[in-house]
Amino acid sequence: MRDTSSVGLVAPQTARFDDALVLKSGDVLPGFELVYETYGTLNAARSNAVLVCHALSGNHHVAGFHDPAHPQKTAGWWDNLVGVGKPLDTDRFFVVGVNNLGGCHGSTGPRSLNPATGKPYGADFPLLTVEDWVAAQMRLSDRLGIATWAAVMGGSLGGMQALQWTLACPERARHALVIASAPKLSAQNIAFNEVARQAIRSDPEFYGGHYYEHGATPRRGLKLARMVGHITYLSGDQMAEKFGRQLRHGQHRFNYEVEFEIESYLRHQGDKFADAFDANTYLIATKALDYFDPAFAYGGNLAAALARAKAGFFVASFTTDWRFAPERSHEIVHALLQNGLNVSYAEIECAAGHDSFLLDTPHYHQALAAYLKGIVL
Amino acid sequence: MRDTSSVGLVAPQTARFDDALVLKSGDVLPGFELVYETYGTLNAARSNAVLVCHALSGNHHVAGFHDPAHPQKTAGWWDNLVGVGKPLDTDRFFVVGVNNLGGCHGSTGPRSLNPATGKPYGADFPLLTVEDWVAAQMRLSDRLGIATWAAVMGGSLGGMQALQWTLACPERARHALVIASAPKLSAQNIAFNEVARQAIRSDPEFYGGHYYEHGATPRRGLKLARMVGHITYLSGDQMAEKFGRQLRHGQHRFNYEVEFEIESYLRHQGDKFADAFDANTYLIATKALDYFDPAFAYGGNLAAALARAKAGFFVASFTTDWRFAPERSHEIVHALLQNGLNVSYAEIECAAGHDSFLLDTPHYHQALAAYLKGIVL
Repeated sequence: MRDTSSVGLVAPQTARFDDALVLKSGDVLPGFELVYETYGTLNAARSNAVLVCHALSGNHHVAGFHDPAHPQKTAGWWDNLVGVGKPLDTDRFFVVGVNNLGGCHGSTGPRSLNPATGKPYGADFPLLTVEDWVAAQMRLSDRLGIATWAAVMGGSLGGMQALQWTLACPERARHALVIASAPKLSAQNIAFNEVARQAIRSDPEFYGGHYYEHGATPRRGLKLARMVGHITYLSGDQMAEKFGRQLRHGQHRFNYEVEFEIESYLRHQGDKFADAFDANTYLIATKALDYFDPAFAYGGNLAAALARAKAGFFVASFTTDWRFAPERSHEIVHALLQNGLNVSYAEIECAAGHDSFLLDTPHYHQALAAYLKGIVL
Repeated sequence: MRDTSSVGLVAPQTARFDDALVLKSGDVLPGFELVYETYGTLNAARSNAVLVCHALSGNHHVAGFHDPAHPQKTAGWWDNLVGVGKPLDTDRFFVVGVNNLGGCHGSTGPRSLNPATGKPYGADFPLLTVEDWVAAQMRLSDRLGIATWAAVMGGSLGGMQALQWTLACPERARHALVIASAPKLSAQNIAFNEVARQAIRSDPEFYGGHYYEHGATPRRGLKLARMVGHITYLSGDQMAEKFGRQLRHGQHRFNYEVEFEIESYLRHQGDKFADAFDANTYLIATKALDYFDPAFAYGGNLAAALARAKAGFFVASFTTDWRFAPERSHEIVHALLQNGLNVSYAEIECAAGHDSFLLDTPHYHQALAAYLKGIVL
């Protein structure tokens, strides 16, 4: 049966920006490309556009599919959310998904040619911040003729970008949906990122970040990085329910092959990711996560940092998320309320840990749908 | 000022066992050596002996020091617990610390010569279980003339050995002190172990476990394994308090050197460990952790598995331990109580996470001292 709620077959587009971009680090990127997709139709008033920002390993392919022969296998990462009659309803909204700068899915990143050398940037690609991503997304907004987004939204690192939009250009985002996110990483969050980075950077196939030139890939390091990341995306309860101590062969075999099914699952996730993602992009994204801290310039005072914001906010967290626990969303909500802003907050019961934001748990999708319906176009 | 409560300068001893040991895996170890230390004096009735079992990265050097010029630097890992007037009082008890089979501190392990080949065992050293460790410790008990231990105790993996003693030979351990432990690993626990193992085994310097012969060390892998392990030993709160987002240089430098102090700390812990520990021993110990599950043979019924136990039990957990959370100790306590056994349970408030069992938090040491004082000699 055909899924009439899907946005259907979609294709990415590319926008080229020739003006240099000055980054927060002080480095300058001499022009860049962003790959993006759109779903639905921009209305005449240009008031119905929603920007969806992706998380650590996401990209511009948010909804619909790329291959009609394999609609499910090539579906966007938030396809359950975006479509006809779905919470982010494409009958009503014009939705834009974009691959961030530094990415590995078509936007300018470490794999792109460095015009200064004619070789891939590799380790010479500058480090980026959430602020830089938003600045690049702003160029895309201009190009698309979108002066003001009806909403900017995202989960996890995507939620940080949504929050940053309300600070960088308060007039250009009427609403921000900040889901399963945090106002900054904790020491433990940074620690896990650092393990991932060390795994990649200590892989002999990394070649100081210039592995493309050597025809190499730091596959082992990227696999390890994903394995440790994956543990933090799932809840302990969900792992217990899904895998527990289930044995691959019904008994202990006393070797280093898969004994417990959880080992097989993790190895598989690591291998899949190592085949599909770029290690330099992963490094850049974990650093962007580490650096994000809007309160830093305000002596740690988050309420002061958010004083510029004017958007309406939807903030959501998930009970079993231990990467960005509900308390981290409370910090955002309290700081917004201290500034007298309109905030809707939903704390969703869901067993799936941090990855809950990708699922279509009824309570969660109902809360999102209700908030998005309330946005005046 | 001289520490009069220290057991002072100590030296390890070695016991050689020539009879083969049949392991749980079915493999046979043709004789082996155990390195151990003792503190205090065995009484005439031989009724005052306490066996201290070590955790993942521990060894036989429990108390006292090895170098009079550096008493603190060469102190045993549980020196705050064992000594004159300390909770495990050496005026009263005869304390034995032993390096487990498969270890890298003197007992027979992967670095030892395989009599069959004349080369180091390396990857050919058999996989071990907590049951095997207790079986080897039993040989040492015989050698020392200790028919019955007044108590067997340990933290974490050491607590599992204490529990196993009460099952393997219920008549030979009058008390068991099971601290910061669990009746079996969760899927998440196994997942973290698997990341550590993959880090070591995918290191090109691992050579399939035969790195000694190549004059190599899988240093990178062992460092990563320790880094990820270390995150699970500390609580998130403690990391936040100790490091937070403290910057090494006061500002962001936008490179892959240390930005946040937590990165420096983790790298240092990883390096220190990689210099001091053996990767094959680490692999064996994580597998022993994974396999431990006394209820496995009883269809998952822990109470049935513990029905053989006759010891008195002291069980303790720590509020911020998320590796083996208090709930995991509750499982042990409930199963013991279902068998009508005497159980003292202490849930200690301590910010230090899993590693709390190594500290001398007053409430914790008071509870230990009270229990140990109550043991009739």
